[in-house]
Amino acid sequence: MTDEANTPSPSRRALLAAGGAGLALGAATGAGAVTAARTDDTAPVADTGAAVPFHGRHQAGIATAVQDRLHFAAFDVKTDDRAALIDLLKEWTEAAALLTAGRAVGEGAYGGIPEAPPDDTGEALGLKPSRLTLTFGVGPGLFDERFGLADRRPEALVDLPKFPGDNLDAARSGGDLCVQACADDPQVAVHAIRNLARIGFGKVAVRWSQLGFGKTSSTTPDAQTPRNMMGFKDGTRNIAGNDTSNLAKHVWVSEKDGPDWMAGGSYLVARRIRMNIETWDRTSLKEQEDIFGRTKGEGAPYGKRHERDEPELRAMPEAAHVRLAHPDRHGGAMMLRRGYSFTDGTDGLGRLDAGLFFLAYQRDVRDAFIPVQRALARRDVLNEYIQHVGSAVFAIPPGVADEGSWWGRELFTGKA
Amino acid sequence: MTDEANTPSPSRRALLAAGGAGLALGAATGAGAVTAARTDDTAPVADTGAAVPFHGRHQAGIATAVQDRLHFAAFDVKTDDRAALIDLLKEWTEAAALLTAGRAVGEGAYGGIPEAPPDDTGEALGLKPSRLTLTFGVGPGLFDERFGLADRRPEALVDLPKFPGDNLDAARSGGDLCVQACADDPQVAVHAIRNLARIGFGKVAVRWSQLGFGKTSSTTPDAQTPRNMMGFKDGTRNIAGNDTSNLAKHVWVSEKDGPDWMAGGSYLVARRIRMNIETWDRTSLKEQEDIFGRTKGEGAPYGKRHERDEPELRAMPEAAHVRLAHPDRHGGAMMLRRGYSFTDGTDGLGRLDAGLFFLAYQRDVRDAFIPVQRALARRDVLNEYIQHVGSAVFAIPPGVADEGSWWGRELFTGKA
Repeated sequence: MTDEANTPSPSRRALLAAGGAGLALGAATGAGAVTAARTDDTAPVADTGAAVPFHGRHQAGIATAVQDRLHFAAFDVKTDDRAALIDLLKEWTEAAALLTAGRAVGEGAYGGIPEAPPDDTGEALGLKPSRLTLTFGVGPGLFDERFGLADRRPEALVDLPKFPGDNLDAARSGGDLCVQACADDPQVAVHAIRNLARIGFGKVAVRWSQLGFGKTSSTTPDAQTPRNMMGFKDGTRNIAGNDTSNLAKHVWVSEKDGPDWMAGGSYLVARRIRMNIETWDRTSLKEQEDIFGRTKGEGAPYGKRHERDEPELRAMPEAAHVRLAHPDRHGGAMMLRRGYSFTDGTDGLGRLDAGLFFLAYQRDVRDAFIPVQRALARRDVLNEYIQHVGSAVFAIPPGVADEGSWWGRELFTGKA
Repeated sequence: MTDEANTPSPSRRALLAAGGAGLALGAATGAGAVTAARTDDTAPVADTGAAVPFHGRHQAGIATAVQDRLHFAAFDVKTDDRAALIDLLKEWTEAAALLTAGRAVGEGAYGGIPEAPPDDTGEALGLKPSRLTLTFGVGPGLFDERFGLADRRPEALVDLPKFPGDNLDAARSGGDLCVQACADDPQVAVHAIRNLARIGFGKVAVRWSQLGFGKTSSTTPDAQTPRNMMGFKDGTRNIAGNDTSNLAKHVWVSEKDGPDWMAGGSYLVARRIRMNIETWDRTSLKEQEDIFGRTKGEGAPYGKRHERDEPELRAMPEAAHVRLAHPDRHGGAMMLRRGYSFTDGTDGLGRLDAGLFFLAYQRDVRDAFIPVQRALARRDVLNEYIQHVGSAVFAIPPGVADEGSWWGRELFTGKA
């Protein structure tokens, strides 16, 4: 994706053979970072054009400062050949390292053999890395009888229970694998998912995918808190990307949590939450604020003046969203939220199909998403205005340590 | 949408009464431009945060430098009360002038009466104007028996013929009214459409809407030409936004074209073009280039070296896209294209529902889109990879001259 407009791109393989020198990297976008920096080094990144390091202890795209746009894809694995699946994961990892560095896949969009399909689809040529991160996960379905992984399924990778009010569409739920692509330029995120789907042709198929046009949570508390489609600031008390203490406590799976292959990983819950925005928009300001327990303008908790003031739960209506979801009610459970707003055309009834694509990372869904959602599903007044219509849960393996490794390597080759 | 986080926003009406002084406009984003500058003044704008003038001879969003993101909505009119429709158009116009200036609608998202629904939905609070433009159009359905406009239908507003290969979905086609929202921040574009839909509740309903995540044409020839989902540069020879000669010749309806109410307006053809990207991605580089008649990297026409070299049609394969669509074959007809790439999840068959949302402005569709699309639909090799699945045509009235005027005023009150 460097600006290669006038000359065919040098062969990526030749470059790697020559020690990975950045000959083709004209755009000076930090693409050398493929091996240099590591995900662990990333304090929140500010430069929207830059590349985010791919290799490291944890996968990027979790603690990374939340990018502006999302393309999320869940895949069904169509092969039952374990070796073929492993080959695909190696290919995907190689491509992901290039894409996140702002480079094209393989020989690029026009640098290969004219009689063969190009290795890269080309629509991101000339665009910056745009802080693209690609975060890989495995769903419960991967642990069925096909790949000999049944005894490796983490206890924490539970099938989510049915919550009151759930109205889940199977076609927008589940998946054997997932890739979360976040970038500040949506074309870069879409390009990445599309190329991974292309590489996986015949072995995997896209089960569902979701575009997110605006972030609804940030992991950089100094920045302006984004607003969701209800017009409220969202994620004020989210875990910050540089809060190593809360990341260790609530997000990263530790070595003693088990299984071994998940150490340094996390668990992701994805929920497509449709909002009845037309109904919400006819609700009074007072009622809207009562429902959240915060003011709409400043985002201050009831009885307080500033957004980041500590909420005083007793000052809020009994069933206010902030009160029901507060960690104090759930044994201190916190999640790192990374959701995005979506608008997917219309629903056939003259209403926009819009809402929140909720993404939350946590150390154990049994202690975090499940109890919190149980409480919300039962009592939250917000339920009059929202409906959960898609759901999935994934185990997010640790980061790819170095160029010799690949997504899921520990799962397939390490200790159970 | 200025940063009003700590104080309730002053009443917009009070501000207007006070001469429109920009008391609430803390973000210094040129919001005073609501009345100051005019659309006619806009040479292509570069500052992505700025406001684009709303009032002027032509509507903004046509010759305006193409913004990065799109939310397009077509509406059915649900009332048959002419006065109610006119009231709505006045309300819409008032809101559009505020929104494009980066301001909230009415009393804002939290500045009104607590017991009433807020005037603005709030999710764009704190965001910049982001070069938002709102471009309004009327479809053939508005000229039926309901509003007494039958004798005002422009001859040029024809129902498009069925082209070979069309596979149109009625639910993604047509519409009595349209609003094209373009902005560099998609949240700003979505917010605008959503608020117009909210204002129109009971009188209009969204028939279909389309998000575009990346532009595929530019009206600023000095900038990098964007690439479509096939990986090719698109719109290299598009009409530039400052090319007044070609705009007058090919885009703006002149006074002698008639009807009077359309002078200074244009006609818009919108087509949702689904791309079979999985098939395309398995096509050889040579075949891809033969199909377009341009190289994939540089975008040079066959036999030439540079993107902007004059195409030599005889150097191309007989059925190359560039050759078939070239103005020389269509009496010199040109359109100003403003299309966007889309990706709307999956199609249930493991494939991304992706493609090009084609938007083209022209002085007369009978001389431009129709003959060009006839030629392409019949012979273009590209048809193996694309399918037109949505279609609409709209008359785009001239710009709103000043604060006393409104969208469609000439249609409802002027000469036929």
